[in-house]
Amino acid sequence: CSSTTPITATLFPGDGIGPEIAESVKKVFTTAGVPINWEEHYVSTEIDPRTQSFLTWESLESVRRNKVGLKGPMATPIGKGHRSLNLTLRKELNLYANVRPCYSLPGYKTRYDDVNLITIRENTEGEYSGLEHQVVRGVVESLKIITRQASLRVAEYAFHYAKTHGRERVSAIHKANIMQKTDGLFLKCCREVAEKYPEITYEEVVIDNCCMMLVKNPALFDVLVMPNLYGDIISDLCAGLVGGLGLTPSCNIGEDGVALAEAVHGSAPDIAGKNLANPTALLLSGVMMLRHLKLNEQAEQIHSAIINTIAEGKYRTADLGGSSTTTDFTKAICDHL
Amino acid sequence: CSSTTPITATLFPGDGIGPEIAESVKKVFTTAGVPINWEEHYVSTEIDPRTQSFLTWESLESVRRNKVGLKGPMATPIGKGHRSLNLTLRKELNLYANVRPCYSLPGYKTRYDDVNLITIRENTEGEYSGLEHQVVRGVVESLKIITRQASLRVAEYAFHYAKTHGRERVSAIHKANIMQKTDGLFLKCCREVAEKYPEITYEEVVIDNCCMMLVKNPALFDVLVMPNLYGDIISDLCAGLVGGLGLTPSCNIGEDGVALAEAVHGSAPDIAGKNLANPTALLLSGVMMLRHLKLNEQAEQIHSAIINTIAEGKYRTADLGGSSTTTDFTKAICDHL
Ligand SMILES: CC(C)[C@H](C(=O)O)[C@@H](O)C(=O)O
Ligand SMILES: CC(C)[C@H](C(=O)O)[C@@H](O)C(=O)O
Repeated sequence: CSSTTPITATLFPGDGIGPEIAESVKKVFTTAGVPINWEEHYVSTEIDPRTQSFLTWESLESVRRNKVGLKGPMATPIGKGHRSLNLTLRKELNLYANVRPCYSLPGYKTRYDDVNLITIRENTEGEYSGLEHQVVRGVVESLKIITRQASLRVAEYAFHYAKTHGRERVSAIHKANIMQKTDGLFLKCCREVAEKYPEITYEEVVIDNCCMMLVKNPALFDVLVMPNLYGDIISDLCAGLVGGLGLTPSCNIGEDGVALAEAVHGSAPDIAGKNLANPTALLLSGVMMLRHLKLNEQAEQIHSAIINTIAEGKYRTADLGGSSTTTDFTKAICDHL
Repeated sequence: CSSTTPITATLFPGDGIGPEIAESVKKVFTTAGVPINWEEHYVSTEIDPRTQSFLTWESLESVRRNKVGLKGPMATPIGKGHRSLNLTLRKELNLYANVRPCYSLPGYKTRYDDVNLITIRENTEGEYSGLEHQVVRGVVESLKIITRQASLRVAEYAFHYAKTHGRERVSAIHKANIMQKTDGLFLKCCREVAEKYPEITYEEVVIDNCCMMLVKNPALFDVLVMPNLYGDIISDLCAGLVGGLGLTPSCNIGEDGVALAEAVHGSAPDIAGKNLANPTALLLSGVMMLRHLKLNEQAEQIHSAIINTIAEGKYRTADLGGSSTTTDFTKAICDHL
């Protein structure tokens, strides 16, 4: 409906089912009249024969220039001698906060129907420092690094998010009873930021207790902020409460307003190319990207179309117990627009 | 019924509600005719005015001599200048494996009715090394230490447990895609041990994925073995699936057959001394202790009495939605014996 000048956004379809679910997003966005031109880049654990690279400088520059992008799954081969591409992108683009909203989908039944929370994960340091070594034979160590700068930055993001999204409470997740210095510094930074947001309730929850409370009563939580590994663990746990990573979106936030939305599920090589993949997580990540761009009207339209299609239950992919193809499910969403 | 010579076992009632729930165990064990003499020791975060100590050498020696004990909750004050007593005991007594069975209690309804798994946690190293320091102002680091010796030892315990308890599968939980050296060594050790147990299925599950699978379908898991912090997190998550730490037992295993069973919930200072505490976790930990002592008949009798009392629902403490006192609930269990 609106006749805005189109926005250019980077698209990394990724590995495995990535290209199929990226097609789905392009289809739905076009049908909804979203004013976006995609700048598509090949980034994959398989080296591109054309560029002899799995990640070109141009791909990184594309996100830096456009300041906004959407990313499909990339495989993480264990012990293949290079770091996970997912992590390389986070690091190269300085994507410091990983935001994962997690809410019960009306119409998709799990054991929980009252989940509505946001996990905000520090995305650059902590247990993901990559610093490890063998001390002597049979004794190895890894370093967990926590800095004041990165902790303040992610805490600030979390409180600002809570305030601007009508959220009431921020819970900092930690294990400062054991890691008094590292998690202690993280908490100290959260407390400092909390003081600037008196309208937001602030609490601190030990990670083991947090996991127990999440499975007993997830409605207790609102916005959760935490160091890298705890965020990795808790965001997956929360995704499980509402159906899994195939249904939950995420967005990585960097400095200077950069945002790279990302489906965080695997690349599912077993079903790749078979038109069986569920594009929901990438579509909902696309919706997060639209909200980031303040294209709220189209964001809500597409969001409703996805939710309604799943709720109706006529077209569902195999992972949700249905037998629809990716293209049929996508068409059903477009029909709802 | 049996007229065995009594066994001497150490008892640490602990802090807060500890003394009340320890009374409950003594009552139930006496009623069931368990041939145990308790050697009771005061260990508490509050300094004992008689000994001017919170943990005496005699208390440690008692466990070392008896090789078996039962422990109530001890408070973990954050930043009070001394380590958690729970950890001090694990360290001093070299309690290398923490075993937590977790199963749906017939008659106590949660969202899950099909949980039946055992978490086995490495209890001496990993993220609990206590090694931390400030690198420069605003930059702190913690060391995670993984050794071949401790990893082999806990893996061996897990596989042996699986084999002797009719379990079919051991899952090693890790994040070796990120911590390739530390978690990589842990996995390497698990694989080595797995080779000696061809009858047990062995698998490796990344911790984030494990948490997602646990909340979606806990019946997928049987025995789980993992480094210290993952064990802390996952055992609480699993306890949450079946009702919380108030209902789940644990036992710490050391070298030379030492076993210290332990209720791992908090000391609940708010309800201490009010006859409101739920003694179930300590009672079930006591049952684990009896099984360890091969007092299987009494173990099963007491276990059934606890389960049946909870299932009947007439006597339940407040945390389970009832209004019974600790003593009434305990009496109800004794009446079932
Ligand atoms: C693939 C893996 C390296 C990654 C992580 O650990 O961060 C993933 O689990 C995620 O959460 O995005
Ligand atoms: C009290 C705390 C130090 C302890 C731990 O982290 O191990 C507790 O959570 C546990 O699981 O026994």
